[in-house]
Amino acid sequence: MIKQEELRINIDRLVGSLRQLGDIGALAGGGVCRLALTDEDKAGRDLLSTWMRELDLDIKTDELGNMVGIRKGRQSVPPVLIGSHLDTVGTGGLYDGSLGVLAGLEIMRILDEFQIATERPLAIANFTNEEGVRFTPDMMGSLAFSGIVAASEMLSAKTVDGSGKTVGEELTRIGYAGAIPCGTFEVDSFLELHIEQGPLLEEEGVDIGAVSMVQGIYWTEYQFTGSSNHAGTTPLHLRRDAGLVAAATATFVRQLALKMGGDQVGTVGLIELFPNLINVMAERARIIVDLRNTDAQALAQAQQLLEAEIELLAAAEKIAFEKTELVRFPPVQFDREIVAVIEKVSEDLGYSHKKMPSGAGHDAQMLAPICPTAMIFVPSVGGISHNIEEFTKRSDIEKGANVLLQAALRLLNRPLD
Amino acid sequence: MIKQEELRINIDRLVGSLRQLGDIGALAGGGVCRLALTDEDKAGRDLLSTWMRELDLDIKTDELGNMVGIRKGRQSVPPVLIGSHLDTVGTGGLYDGSLGVLAGLEIMRILDEFQIATERPLAIANFTNEEGVRFTPDMMGSLAFSGIVAASEMLSAKTVDGSGKTVGEELTRIGYAGAIPCGTFEVDSFLELHIEQGPLLEEEGVDIGAVSMVQGIYWTEYQFTGSSNHAGTTPLHLRRDAGLVAAATATFVRQLALKMGGDQVGTVGLIELFPNLINVMAERARIIVDLRNTDAQALAQAQQLLEAEIELLAAAEKIAFEKTELVRFPPVQFDREIVAVIEKVSEDLGYSHKKMPSGAGHDAQMLAPICPTAMIFVPSVGGISHNIEEFTKRSDIEKGANVLLQAALRLLNRPLD
Repeated sequence: MIKQEELRINIDRLVGSLRQLGDIGALAGGGVCRLALTDEDKAGRDLLSTWMRELDLDIKTDELGNMVGIRKGRQSVPPVLIGSHLDTVGTGGLYDGSLGVLAGLEIMRILDEFQIATERPLAIANFTNEEGVRFTPDMMGSLAFSGIVAASEMLSAKTVDGSGKTVGEELTRIGYAGAIPCGTFEVDSFLELHIEQGPLLEEEGVDIGAVSMVQGIYWTEYQFTGSSNHAGTTPLHLRRDAGLVAAATATFVRQLALKMGGDQVGTVGLIELFPNLINVMAERARIIVDLRNTDAQALAQAQQLLEAEIELLAAAEKIAFEKTELVRFPPVQFDREIVAVIEKVSEDLGYSHKKMPSGAGHDAQMLAPICPTAMIFVPSVGGISHNIEEFTKRSDIEKGANVLLQAALRLLNRPLD
Repeated sequence: MIKQEELRINIDRLVGSLRQLGDIGALAGGGVCRLALTDEDKAGRDLLSTWMRELDLDIKTDELGNMVGIRKGRQSVPPVLIGSHLDTVGTGGLYDGSLGVLAGLEIMRILDEFQIATERPLAIANFTNEEGVRFTPDMMGSLAFSGIVAASEMLSAKTVDGSGKTVGEELTRIGYAGAIPCGTFEVDSFLELHIEQGPLLEEEGVDIGAVSMVQGIYWTEYQFTGSSNHAGTTPLHLRRDAGLVAAATATFVRQLALKMGGDQVGTVGLIELFPNLINVMAERARIIVDLRNTDAQALAQAQQLLEAEIELLAAAEKIAFEKTELVRFPPVQFDREIVAVIEKVSEDLGYSHKKMPSGAGHDAQMLAPICPTAMIFVPSVGGISHNIEEFTKRSDIEKGANVLLQAALRLLNRPLD
C-alpha cells in the first residue's frame, strides 16, 4: 500500500473536470459565465452533485444552497473542509473558485482510488454566490454558512438587475434550497486552494503562496457637488469644479498609498462627472475609493488621512460632499499552524513557496472565525482574473492540488484530543 | 428733430420682441430650445423675416442660410453690420444670440421712428448655427459668411445625432437655402451685443464690457491605455493605471493655469474610465483638456507644459497615450478704434464700463478678419448661460442696446474717404 506522503493527485483527471465544468456557461470567445443561481449555476451544481454521488459522499445542502459532500472518517468528528465556489463573474475564467472545489473532489477521488481511510472525515463545499455580481453581498454563502450573518437576511436579497427576483426564489427555482439551517455545521478546519488573481507569484517565480491573511478592505463612495460654469468665462478663483476635486482625490489616493508604505494599496477605478462636457466644469462628481491593508490600524489611519485631504480639497474649491461607507472589512488572520503546515508540505514536495497576504476577498475569510483556516495560492498568468483570459498553468495547478492534498492529509490524521 | 446722441432704444419693445421670440421653442420649465435648422429655428427665422419686412429692409439670404436685412444709407457703400444668432443650445435662455439680433432690429425701428438717415447703410444679420450643437463646427454660418471656410464644406456636414441629415438638406427643408454665395458680402464694420456668459461684470458691478478680443482656445483629447488589474492583488509598482494618469492630468491642468497666471484658464470637464469599476484599475481613460488664454504665445506655452507633464505621468505609470487636437483657435484681436468708440459711448451715456476679453467664442471673431469688429457685453446674472436659468436684467439690456445704438451711429456717420 502507498505511503500517504507519496500520494499525488491525477492532473489529467483534475484538468478534465475543470474543462467539463467550464463547458457549462462557456462564452463564445473563451471564458465562462455562471452567475449565481442562474440556469448555468444549476447545471454546474448538478454536475458537482453527480460527481459527489459517484463518490458516495453524504451530500448536505443548507437553506442558502451551500453544498457539502462528506467522506466518512474513522471517527465521528467534525470534518476537515475543503471548499470554494462554482459561481463566476460575467466574464469569468475556468479557475477562479472552480479550482478550489474540484481540487477537493480530486482529493476525494485519489483517496478512494488508493482506498485510504482518514481519522477525521473529509468534506468538500461549494459556497453560494461568492462573486456577488448578481446578488450582493459577495461571499454570501460562506458568510451565512459560518453564522456571521443570518441566512434570512440573504434570502430576501434581490438581483442587482432590478428584476425583483430574490435569492430565496431563485434557490427554490433551481432546486437548491436545502433544509439544513445555516450556522449549524461543525467544521474541524478549512482549506481553500485558489488562483492568486495577482501577479506576485508569477513575477517572483514562486510555485506556492501560503496565504496567512486577507487584507482589510474599505470601499468609500464620495459624491461632490459644485457648480457647472463655462470653461472660458469663469475665472479660476470663482470656480467650484466638482470634477477637479474628484481628480485631485484620485491622484492623492496613490500618493497616500505610497506614503503609508507596507502593504497599503489604494485605487480609484470609478470616476463619473456630470454633465461630463468639454467646456463646462462638472457640477457633480462621483468616485469610489478602494483602500486595502493587512494592518487594521494602518488601514484605519489611511482612511483618516484620505478624509482629511478631501476636507481640504473640497473647502478650497467650495465643494460640498457626501460620503457613503460601502465596505468595511477588517483584515482576517488565518491559522498560523495551518499556514506552517502548507509551508512544510510545499518544502517536502520540493516546491518554492512564500507566505503572503491575499489582496482579494475569499470564502476562507468567512470560515476563519469558526475554525482554523488557511489558503493556498497558485500563480495567475499576468495576474489576470475576472477576465476570459484568466489562466493558470497545468503544472501550477498540479503543484497547488498536491499541496492541498498533503496539507489535508496532515489535518485529517492529526491525533484527536 | 432729435439729436442723434440723444436717441435711446425702446426697452419695452425690445424686451417684448425677446419674449415673443422666446415663445418659439419654449421649454416647459423655462428657457428655450431652438436647435439650428429645426422647425423651431425656421419659426424663429420666419418671425425675424416678418419683422424685417415690416421695416422694408432689403433681405438677403446666402447659401448657408445666413440672413441679412439692409436699411439704405445716403451712400451706396458697404453697411455697418450688427448681428448674432437665433439658434440656441438644447437648454438655452432667451438672451444668448437673440439679444444681439433683436437689439439690431430695435435700432432699425428707432431710426425709422425718428426718421433718421445715416451716411452708410445699416444691416442686421442672423448667422446660421452658431451653437454647433446639432451640426459641428460651431460659428458655422459666420465662418462661411466671411469666406474663411468654403460653404460647400459646411453644407455636407451631418447632424451629430447620427440621423444622417445634412446642413444642405435641412436648409432646403426649412426654406432658408439662399442663392447668394458665401464670402461675397462686403461689410464696413461689425458690432455684436451679447450677454457675458461669465460672472465678471456682475461680480465687479460694471454695466458694459468693451470686448477687445476673444481668448484663444485649445481643446485636446487624450486617450490613455494601461492595464486593468485587481485593486487588491496588484502592488503599486506593477500598476499601469490609466485612470490615475487621467486624474493626475486633470489635477495638473488647474495647477498649470494658476502657475501661468494672467488670463490663462484650464478645465477638464470630461473624464471617462473603462471599465469604470470599483475594484479594478482603469485599462483606458479619456479626457479632454480645455486651455484658453488671451495671449497666443502663453497659450502655446501652456499646451507645451501640459504635454511635458503628460509625458512624465504616462512614463511613470507605463501608460501609452494618443492625442487628438480637437480645436486650435488662436486669440482674435478686435479693432482698437471700435473698442475705443464703445468705451467713449459708454462714458457719454454715464455707464460704468471695462475693457475685457471674451472667454467664449462668438460670431464676431469670424467677422474680425474681414472688417473692423468689436463686441459689447452686458452682465449675466450668476454668470449662468447655456442653461434655462440664464438671465440678464432689463436695465442691463437697455444699457447694452443703447451703447450698441450710439456706437453704430458713430460708425454709420464717420466721414467717407
